[in-house]
Amino acid sequence: MINAYAADKEGGELKPYQYDPGSLGAHEVEIAVEYCGVCHSDLSMLDNEWGMSEFPFVPGHEVAGKVAAVGEHVTHLKEGDRVGLGWHSGYCNTCHPCMSGDHNLCGQAQGTIIGRHGGFADRVRAQATAVIKLPENLPSEVAGPLFCGGVTVYNPMKQFELPPTAKVAVIGIGGLGHMALQFLNAWGCEVTAFTSSEAKEKEARELGAHKTLNSKDDKALEDAAGSFDLILSTVNVKLNWELYIGTLKPKGRFHFLGAVLEPVELNVFSLLMGQRSVSASPVGAPVTIAEMLDFAVRHDIKPKVEVFDMKDVNKAIQHLKDGKARYRVVLKN
Amino acid sequence: MINAYAADKEGGELKPYQYDPGSLGAHEVEIAVEYCGVCHSDLSMLDNEWGMSEFPFVPGHEVAGKVAAVGEHVTHLKEGDRVGLGWHSGYCNTCHPCMSGDHNLCGQAQGTIIGRHGGFADRVRAQATAVIKLPENLPSEVAGPLFCGGVTVYNPMKQFELPPTAKVAVIGIGGLGHMALQFLNAWGCEVTAFTSSEAKEKEARELGAHKTLNSKDDKALEDAAGSFDLILSTVNVKLNWELYIGTLKPKGRFHFLGAVLEPVELNVFSLLMGQRSVSASPVGAPVTIAEMLDFAVRHDIKPKVEVFDMKDVNKAIQHLKDGKARYRVVLKN
Repeated sequence: MINAYAADKEGGELKPYQYDPGSLGAHEVEIAVEYCGVCHSDLSMLDNEWGMSEFPFVPGHEVAGKVAAVGEHVTHLKEGDRVGLGWHSGYCNTCHPCMSGDHNLCGQAQGTIIGRHGGFADRVRAQATAVIKLPENLPSEVAGPLFCGGVTVYNPMKQFELPPTAKVAVIGIGGLGHMALQFLNAWGCEVTAFTSSEAKEKEARELGAHKTLNSKDDKALEDAAGSFDLILSTVNVKLNWELYIGTLKPKGRFHFLGAVLEPVELNVFSLLMGQRSVSASPVGAPVTIAEMLDFAVRHDIKPKVEVFDMKDVNKAIQHLKDGKARYRVVLKN
Repeated sequence: MINAYAADKEGGELKPYQYDPGSLGAHEVEIAVEYCGVCHSDLSMLDNEWGMSEFPFVPGHEVAGKVAAVGEHVTHLKEGDRVGLGWHSGYCNTCHPCMSGDHNLCGQAQGTIIGRHGGFADRVRAQATAVIKLPENLPSEVAGPLFCGGVTVYNPMKQFELPPTAKVAVIGIGGLGHMALQFLNAWGCEVTAFTSSEAKEKEARELGAHKTLNSKDDKALEDAAGSFDLILSTVNVKLNWELYIGTLKPKGRFHFLGAVLEPVELNVFSLLMGQRSVSASPVGAPVTIAEMLDFAVRHDIKPKVEVFDMKDVNKAIQHLKDGKARYRVVLKN
């Protein structure tokens, strides 16, 4: 039996919940969860914001732990390996995206907390392909958040072959944004943090921002017209997108990492005159996660975490809901 | 004196109009206009749809002709050279985009019919940088439309390093679209034409489309989900963009070439799940025009033109307005 924490209804409190995972699949790995990050997507799923949650619902998709058991066809992992698991817990492994190394774009990709149980538990299972070894020098405590939030911000740097000469801005200095600043700084870019809170300006600079811009100051945004090669938006609320797109240089790209639910209104002219792009991407493929972990260790990039005991999961969720997380909440078994 | 055709007010009829261009600038070229294409942008400017027209207004930015005179600092062109001129008639030549070969993104780029007089005339002037020699085997009669419509559809193929394995769809089989089909076919791509008129289906295939899709058939669009690497939209009216974006493959790009005035509403989720991009671009740089001309000649790509005498300019405009152009109207001096 697996001992987890589940909500039995939309927005419900998490309560101890046991389930029988059945026999381990031939290509599966069972992970003994040591830490599990709490991501905004866990809250969205808990509240069924995306209309695809199933209850009882066990959140958790930023897992760090040790391999407890492997299925009979698993060859590249063994019991005791330190590993992590992110948003996806399996892929078809045969479609064009999978065969191209873009498993995160696989149409059959299995979400770790979609139609199955996640990492707010003592154990969690996943297809071996989705389970990545942790580099030796990466502490398990900070590893979990890299598997979802970390790779989400790293992925566009990789996908768009971001040059280190680029000037990049980050919208939203929270769970994702605070890692983006670190990755972009280590990547060699000039990094600007858009932030609406003065308190975060100093922290943003400590995290790697060379500049900060007050996102509530429309004048400052207008003055920044034509400044950035890339803007990474990590927020999931509606902003004045047009104003931000105006801060892009010719050929600049505005990239959404946050799942904004309201439609985004774009002015074709402002894209057209500067050959600008608007795009979005979901997490990253296993190969990108592995590369990102290696890069993170080499550059000492770590999410700043606040650790709660797994039994205090509801307190941890409330902390995140209250906007108090600085910057990533992690549960510990 | 230059003998042109000008409108003296928004939407006005074009009438003979003479103006004195003054002395030729040191870096300027005067072109004796032989042919000039009529582009939808000429109509938009004539009707002051973009709020930047000045009257008297001389349209015309798809010029083919011969160099009549060169300024004292012009070294790469000489009297008698067969040349063309497109949307831009000059650049700053020193900004980052200009120095990068992206003159079409220069913030100081001078529009051929913006604040100056265009090619519906016996002569037109431009900065030498914006005047491109015609390849020997390119008939002047078909050259003009390549300088605006042609490079507009060719430019994204170049900018995004389109591989010949790509599956590409074109929305709108008119002045731009009928050239896009030819370029994409010659580029090696699988080409699909979205068209709302059955009459154009056969023509689209003759122009290079391997497949056609009825854009009025929502079911057909839904069935085409995940089909295309790139969609080039050449129309300037509002469509159900979300339905088209759904026809993109993972990593696919929807690219606007038509200046749609109404805001485009995008769903971030559908971009995010497939790492899709939405973008737009304006015409192309001189280096891209020259490359495009060379490619066009090598692959026998030619706009299909209907030639009107310059004196019948109002008739030619009405023909285009009536949607009767098959596919590009060209004025002849």
